[in-house]
Parts: sequence; structure tokens; C-alpha cells
Amino acid sequence: MLHFMELILAHVGARIPGGDEFRTLSELYLQRASAFMPSEAMGFRSEQNLLEWLERKSGRMLPVAVLLDSRGRQMTSEAFAGWIGERRDQGARQIAFAVGPASGWSDEARRRAQLLLSLGPMTMAHALARLVLAEQIYRACTILAGHPYHSGH
Amino acid sequence: MLHFMELILAHVGARIPGGDEFRTLSELYLQRASAFMPSEAMGFRSEQNLLEWLERKSGRMLPVAVLLDSRGRQMTSEAFAGWIGERRDQGARQIAFAVGPASGWSDEARRRAQLLLSLGPMTMAHALARLVLAEQIYRACTILAGHPYHSGH
Repeated sequence: MLHFMELILAHVGARIPGGDEFRTLSELYLQRASAFMPSEAMGFRSEQNLLEWLERKSGRMLPVAVLLDSRGRQMTSEAFAGWIGERRDQGARQIAFAVGPASGWSDEARRRAQLLLSLGPMTMAHALARLVLAEQIYRACTILAGHPYHSGH
Repeated sequence: MLHFMELILAHVGARIPGGDEFRTLSELYLQRASAFMPSEAMGFRSEQNLLEWLERKSGRMLPVAVLLDSRGRQMTSEAFAGWIGERRDQGARQIAFAVGPASGWSDEARRRAQLLLSLGPMTMAHALARLVLAEQIYRACTILAGHPYHSGH
């Protein structure tokens, strides 16, 4: 049976950060990514809700958690794609890529993460970081599939 | 007399990269930046047109050129703001921040630049890199002005 891994772009907070344009663009990248792997957005009221969701899937493999964190690891798009590909090859069912609350992640959340990812040394608005992450998820899918999107840039 | 330095978000190519949403968001950040320093978008048909424009202002101080380049220097938002502030304090009249052609910058353009700036190790779509740059320009303005936007993130 074909193994599908699901990609989830998660945010913490009452609503998706940013206005309509940010939401539209992030959604567009997730739609494009879905041509390669099922991809969707998911919101959590609080960090605690996210952590509970990450642990709730009893009897199934727990989702892999990737948290955006300014103190995290910087990766090239190729390395990021490679990391996602390894999780897939290890049989992961879901990867949740999460943009944190305005106050940042707690130590508990950081310990739970399989990867703390930094998008670079510049500070970005949450909505923009989420959009960059959405594009990187789509780009990773194209890299893993050998699709020409990435080589075009 | 108060010295105003103008900030220009330049792109090379027949049209602004990305769809309406990218244009709207970039424009929004430039509008916000204009509360601190005059800021506007400018398009150049080709790299050569940009280089000619950079040299054309005879009798006046030439614009400072900052080119986005994956081989460039990574900076924090604070360092980027500090760099802009130094140019202003040295009497620069204009800084042109430019996103390159799809094929990348020529050696000539790289030599002309005062700063080659990298947004980080990940490859981004041109439209997205332009938006990130617009936000960093706004953020730099707020950092230089002591406005709370930056400390909120």
C-alpha cells in the first residue's frame, strides 16, 4: 500500500496571523503542495492545545513536530526537503510545522519538537514567517519529486 | 535643513514578481515605512537599466545599492537597520534595495553594490523575497525610530 505522509501548517493563536492576502497566499502554497503530499492548515488556540494534539493520536504514530524558532537550525531548502524526505522514508504519518505564539515557545514545546527550524537571522512578522514556511513546504515537495519549481529559482 | 533619505524597493523584470496579493502586501509595508522615510517601489526592465539609473544622477550623490544575493551577507534585522542608519548619517540620499533578475546578478552589478544581502540559506520565490525585503525595510525604519513594531515580535 502506498504510504501517504500528511503535512500540516499549524499556527497557535485565536486566528491565522495576518490579513486576507497572507491567508490567500499561504493557502495557495498548501494547495500546490497537496499535488505532492496532502497538506493543510490547522489552528490551535494555545500552545497547550497543540501539544495535546501532538500526543493525542494514541495507537498511531505520533506526528512529527517542527517548530519555527529563532534559536533553531538554519537549513537550505535542499536540506529541509531532505529532512522531510527522511521522515517520510521512516514511516512518519504526519509532520506538523508550527509557527509559535507571539511570546515564543515554552521549553516544553521545544523539547517535544523533532526539529527547531530558523528561517534565518532576520526577525519576521508571524504572518510572513508562516507564508515563508508554506512556500518552503511546497518547495520541499517539488525538490523531493524532482519537479522543476525549485531549479527555476 | 532636515535630511531625508529615500528608500526604493526595486525589481528587475517586465513586471513586479508575484500576483496581486504579493503586490498589495509589499505596497503596504512601503506605505508604512513612508511614515518614517519616503519609500517607494520602482521597476527596471533589465539589470542594465538599473545600473544606468544608479549612475545617472550626475551632480548628486549616487544612490546606494543593496542587492539581494544568495551569496551575500546574512544580517539580523537590527544589524540591517544599523547599516541603513549609518548610510543616512553619512548623508546618503537614496538607498535602492533590489531583487534580481531570475538568472541572478552579473558580476558587474555585484561590484556596483555597497551591500550584497542574503535573507538566509533557504531559496525563496522572487515575489516572496521581495515581500520579505519590504517588511525588513519597514522593520528597519521602526528600529531606527524606536517604534514598538520590532519589539512586539
